Amino acid sequence: MGKVIGLDLKSKRERQRSDYVFHQDYRTRWADNDMFHHLNNPIYGVLFDSIINAYLMDVAGYSTKSSAYIGLVANTYCDYFGSAQYPGVLDVGLRVVKLGKSSVMYEVGVFQQGEEKVKAVGGFIQIWVLRETNRPDDNGVPEGVRRELVKLVNSEDSEVVKPKGQKL
Amino acid sequence: MGKVIGLDLKSKRERQRSDYVFHQDYRTRWADNDMFHHLNNPIYGVLFDSIINAYLMDVAGYSTKSSAYIGLVANTYCDYFGSAQYPGVLDVGLRVVKLGKSSVMYEVGVFQQGEEKVKAVGGFIQIWVLRETNRPDDNGVPEGVRRELVKLVNSEDSEVVKPKGQKL
Amino acid sequence: MGKVIGLDLKSKRERQRSDYVFHQDYRTRWADNDMFHHLNNPIYGVLFDSIINAYLMDVAGYSTKSSAYIGLVANTYCDYFGSAQYPGVLDVGLRVVKLGKSSVMYEVGVFQQGEEKVKAVGGFIQIWVLRETNRPDDNGVPEGVRRELVKLVNSEDSEVVKPKGQKL
Amino acid sequence: MGKVIGLDLKSKRERQRSDYVFHQDYRTRWADNDMFHHLNNPIYGVLFDSIINAYLMDVAGYSTKSSAYIGLVANTYCDYFGSAQYPGVLDVGLRVVKLGKSSVMYEVGVFQQGEEKVKAVGGFIQIWVLRETNRPDDNGVPEGVRRELVKLVNSEDSEVVKPKGQKL
Repeated sequence: MGKVIGLDLKSKRERQRSDYVFHQDYRTRWADNDMFHHLNNPIYGVLFDSIINAYLMDVAGYSTKSSAYIGLVANTYCDYFGSAQYPGVLDVGLRVVKLGKSSVMYEVGVFQQGEEKVKAVGGFIQIWVLRETNRPDDNGVPEGVRRELVKLVNSEDSEVVKPKGQKL
Repeated sequence: MGKVIGLDLKSKRERQRSDYVFHQDYRTRWADNDMFHHLNNPIYGVLFDSIINAYLMDVAGYSTKSSAYIGLVANTYCDYFGSAQYPGVLDVGLRVVKLGKSSVMYEVGVFQQGEEKVKAVGGFIQIWVLRETNRPDDNGVPEGVRRELVKLVNSEDSEVVKPKGQKL
Repeated sequence: MGKVIGLDLKSKRERQRSDYVFHQDYRTRWADNDMFHHLNNPIYGVLFDSIINAYLMDVAGYSTKSSAYIGLVANTYCDYFGSAQYPGVLDVGLRVVKLGKSSVMYEVGVFQQGEEKVKAVGGFIQIWVLRETNRPDDNGVPEGVRRELVKLVNSEDSEVVKPKGQKL
Repeated sequence: MGKVIGLDLKSKRERQRSDYVFHQDYRTRWADNDMFHHLNNPIYGVLFDSIINAYLMDVAGYSTKSSAYIGLVANTYCDYFGSAQYPGVLDVGLRVVKLGKSSVMYEVGVFQQGEEKVKAVGGFIQIWVLRETNRPDDNGVPEGVRRELVKLVNSEDSEVVKPKGQKL
């Protein structure tokens, strides 16, 4: 039987901060809360975008203005296990579940500071394309980005596909 | 072989406005666009929340303030097929893919006014629980809500589970 | 005594839809509401940005991507007279209070569909600068934009400053 | 001549972190940036709401759910002096400019971490009313809140109005 990419729902619910490689804290904002006094669900997606692109821009040197490549989001997903809220601070963790030739599957875990159990686990699949053509090129994920993303692959349930002639 | 709930990815990409039962138009806003001049991905989630709850509140009579039940979101998903943008208006359509005993699986399609091809298809699974206990009760989805949600089930790929002793 | 630009607070509270020249309707969204079940205050600012830039882009032909000019916001203001909410639709109206050489003072009124009394009146002062230098040039507001903005000046309390050698 | 409440525009532009009493840092998010790669203007309003209410809830013990009073926003204002951006962290500072009988005028300064010059200075005027009647009562700002707000008054240009029979 083949390896299962990612873990099953049961174990997502049991994610811990140490299951992630890159961490940032985000202070929640008044407008994050909904009428039930808990985080609006799309705010988790805002956090996914934020930690992933902060890693790409600050660590991997990606430029939204000048890079020849852009990362298109093909698919987003999120499982919710509890309610986070304002006021407070969220501990957000990031790992890469699958690093393909032109695609990357990210997983993000969101924790409320001061609480142990994970609030939500989700992320997205990103396809790296040429900005000019909107299509993947033969090199797949740009090399400088790939070099940093491979460091986010930390688990037995993950997978790395090496493009021909590349070392990572 | 059992019936497949929802359709495969290929056919999601081919969704049309007529695949949905309830429709609303949402004018896009300046802040919806990201640095690449297209809708931020989490905005689609904002639209899912908005059309689903507008149906529940305006059509099904649900009250966020006084109902004995609340609908918890267990899981969100979205597939992206193209980029929508500000300025403009989005045509948003809603259907129910599965109406379970206590759970509802919604699907929302987002179209840019003036364009035929669907931009994104997604939604969420909602669990109806008692506000007091945060747990489903024996009646499942509250009856007044169920009566209106069953009208959103419109397709061969959908499923309705009737709670014991209920007609819908 | 000189003319007073804009009207006093009392009369802002009495604004009507007919006090505005350009109109758009915006459907509210679930995430617009705060914990008190009313529109978050910054959402009004989102609406100001949205109707003003929609006019600039759709009517006055301004391009955020390619125009040699950009409009910097120097100052925003808003007075609140009542609470708007989701679900529902907002009627938003726009006028120009002062069209200066390089600056524009906009006023926006926000009404809830089905209600007569204005919910909020605000807007911003925008300075047109060259994208390259971030400074106003001698021509002030770009001519194509000025030609359309002057049509939004509709009231005795407004003012238009004509740059030397320009007709508008 | 009477004292001028707040300072003139020139000195707002020269605000420093030390001009504020209560401080929080807010990490920016991908969706904060607009098409020009800078913070959307209404995000500053989101930050004002966030630091003010965090102080009220975490420090002054205010409860959005159970307090007999609510704080209505009458008026918001903001002057912009520079552009903040994602990715990065914002240093946000808060002071009270006028503590009236039933009203409070807040001022918030926003700084980008790593830069000295202030990006924006704004805030709002809040009227404390009874939740039941939506009107101020004779006690004005609730006593527990007033006790903490007076600590945010730190400058010669500020003003405190003591309600009859209260010490603060």
